[in-house]
Amino acid sequence: MKNVIVGQSGGPTSVINSSLAGVFEAARERGAEHVYGMRNGIQGFLEGRYVDLMGIFTKAIDIELLKRTPSSYLGSCRYKLPELFADGAKEVYDSIFEKLEELSVGYFFYIGGNDSMDTIGKLSDYGKEIGSKIRFIGVPKTIDNDLTVTDHTPGYGSAAKYIGVVMKEIIRDATVYGVNYVTIVEIMGRNAGWLTAAAALAGIGENEGVDMICLPEITFDVDRFVEKVRRMQEKKKSIVIAVSEGVKLADGRYVCELSDDVHAEDAFGHKSLTGTARYLANVVAERLDTKTRCIELSTLQRCAGHLTSRTDITEAYQVGGAAVKAAFEGHTGEMVALKRISDAPYQCTTELHPISEVANLEKKVPLEWINDDHTQMKKEFINYAYPLIQAELTPMFVGGLPQHINEL
Amino acid sequence: MKNVIVGQSGGPTSVINSSLAGVFEAARERGAEHVYGMRNGIQGFLEGRYVDLMGIFTKAIDIELLKRTPSSYLGSCRYKLPELFADGAKEVYDSIFEKLEELSVGYFFYIGGNDSMDTIGKLSDYGKEIGSKIRFIGVPKTIDNDLTVTDHTPGYGSAAKYIGVVMKEIIRDATVYGVNYVTIVEIMGRNAGWLTAAAALAGIGENEGVDMICLPEITFDVDRFVEKVRRMQEKKKSIVIAVSEGVKLADGRYVCELSDDVHAEDAFGHKSLTGTARYLANVVAERLDTKTRCIELSTLQRCAGHLTSRTDITEAYQVGGAAVKAAFEGHTGEMVALKRISDAPYQCTTELHPISEVANLEKKVPLEWINDDHTQMKKEFINYAYPLIQAELTPMFVGGLPQHINEL
Repeated sequence: MKNVIVGQSGGPTSVINSSLAGVFEAARERGAEHVYGMRNGIQGFLEGRYVDLMGIFTKAIDIELLKRTPSSYLGSCRYKLPELFADGAKEVYDSIFEKLEELSVGYFFYIGGNDSMDTIGKLSDYGKEIGSKIRFIGVPKTIDNDLTVTDHTPGYGSAAKYIGVVMKEIIRDATVYGVNYVTIVEIMGRNAGWLTAAAALAGIGENEGVDMICLPEITFDVDRFVEKVRRMQEKKKSIVIAVSEGVKLADGRYVCELSDDVHAEDAFGHKSLTGTARYLANVVAERLDTKTRCIELSTLQRCAGHLTSRTDITEAYQVGGAAVKAAFEGHTGEMVALKRISDAPYQCTTELHPISEVANLEKKVPLEWINDDHTQMKKEFINYAYPLIQAELTPMFVGGLPQHINEL
Repeated sequence: MKNVIVGQSGGPTSVINSSLAGVFEAARERGAEHVYGMRNGIQGFLEGRYVDLMGIFTKAIDIELLKRTPSSYLGSCRYKLPELFADGAKEVYDSIFEKLEELSVGYFFYIGGNDSMDTIGKLSDYGKEIGSKIRFIGVPKTIDNDLTVTDHTPGYGSAAKYIGVVMKEIIRDATVYGVNYVTIVEIMGRNAGWLTAAAALAGIGENEGVDMICLPEITFDVDRFVEKVRRMQEKKKSIVIAVSEGVKLADGRYVCELSDDVHAEDAFGHKSLTGTARYLANVVAERLDTKTRCIELSTLQRCAGHLTSRTDITEAYQVGGAAVKAAFEGHTGEMVALKRISDAPYQCTTELHPISEVANLEKKVPLEWINDDHTQMKKEFINYAYPLIQAELTPMFVGGLPQHINEL
């Protein structure tokens, strides 16, 4: 029996550890002797950093705590493997495969988004080149929900639930003074508006919901935006707007680039986007007779372990297990995807897709799910997202605080 | 039997409606025929805006939903009554008392912070001047916890719990990449550091807690701050810092005034403080070899109805009831205060204090509860705050979202 290794990569979520739990338990049940965890993904593994999870998750309560612990238990990285035939690439790949052979690893799992699937794709391609028998399977994870082929990604449901809940609370908070007030809430998602669209969930039930939703899928025009706010405020004093950090002008610049913030780039060339809501709040305050406030949900929206969707946590666990099943049955170079059977009753299963259909690609919000005025999500989006936020996984409160698993 | 009127004033909290529930139920039990609610506090009442809550809270579930609904159900205001003998004051006060007489109001309750207690004080003083029999009692509320005479204020426990929980989550999130990273979290509290100090709660249990806590009680020095961060990062890559929005330089300027934001003032002359964390994150990024991130908890920390302290919700309800009892027994011009009997086991009761001991005064964090290095809270603070965040009031989730009471 070969051993198993698993890593986490990219931005953390509140359910990525549930996928780790799913991989671990499925591997143990299938008889793996060692289940190694890479520290800080493939980057840490290249530096020889890993742990044997068999010696760590020894009690059932460990798994329950792990499922309830946000952020990446094993640590993460944003490391991009070199192209297969680039200068110096052979050295990197040989080093990885050598280490894997040393540990008698037969099955390799990587939990991450589209950048991470690039890693799975390159490793399985290189493995084929050198005739390695190691199986490489990707486990999807991203709050951004921008992976292709999968109906949705684990992590999205909980982030969407968090956004729906706090938008309800922000809307209530913003009405109290009965004065003209514009609240602009900045939500993550650089190119795909799935998270920002989730603000529409606040309008289900007794809350009238947000007044405007601005997705990166729609070209942003500052003047038109201010004019929409002006017209809305003629009818209603408190206006609450959800805006994606990634909204762009017609000339291709991000709106946040109009502000004065420093914008660094990461290893994948992604700009750090922040300041969109602040910029817009300042513009509205200058041009209209209203108070304004900007709120950035920041990392709170991806690490709110105290408020997860049970549907999401369960599916995150399931895709981990499905990945192990696939690898042990001989699959490689594939990603587990979620396939929706029906909306109501909600039913969902897993399937496999070649990694080439996923890596480095982005799935955006369908334009036909956005209303003609570009201010609200249509019913199609609600039907899609609503099942994903259902039910809760009760945190284990100890002394008034949710208990997490001990850090590695 | 005289009728009852109640209003909410100042910044909302996630438990201010529990105090409203406490006033309402106690008044109904004591036989009040009408329990009026002022819309937007005394300001709305002056405009003739009020409702009869007897016709609204008709079912037991209404009260349970009200307790779980963040923000001020009746709306709020930041309206300051004129000084008793100022020009035009008589007109304002006579108008209020005339309206109260019209409604046969015998008992007047105002739920709010130190600015709101100013309103109770002035109304009861004017009432004495004109020989009115109306009883005026203040019900304390503020996340800031800066009221004198009361051990703590309803609203603080839930905000403190929220801060403790999200700091735990932020700390986990900030460690994942294993790189130099400084996260600066901006927390409310313009002159008193009670909320920022609550970040220390994250260090109870398995989490190692925040690395530095900067309260407004301690003069802030930017150079010294950066030097502390530099030294901390020599030992540890991810540094998480809680900083009050109200930290000030030795020359009296707020740190956020060093940034470029617009700073408006409200009716009480309070500056709008924001941008402290962002300014400091930029300074650290410029001077040290580290990535930085700033997070403003903003209004999320005061309206997180999905994560309240049951201790806090219960006490908020109790002070409402105690206010009604006091008024019906003839007290006026007083505020209900919480009196702690012991820390462990935690026991707390209510008592009455003259409004003059409360109005317009601020209670700060004792300097002896802060360590010599001005970076952490001592055990005395933990002993004080820990009981206040205990236990949870489970939200009523409907369709994956916490249900609130319908808006007025």
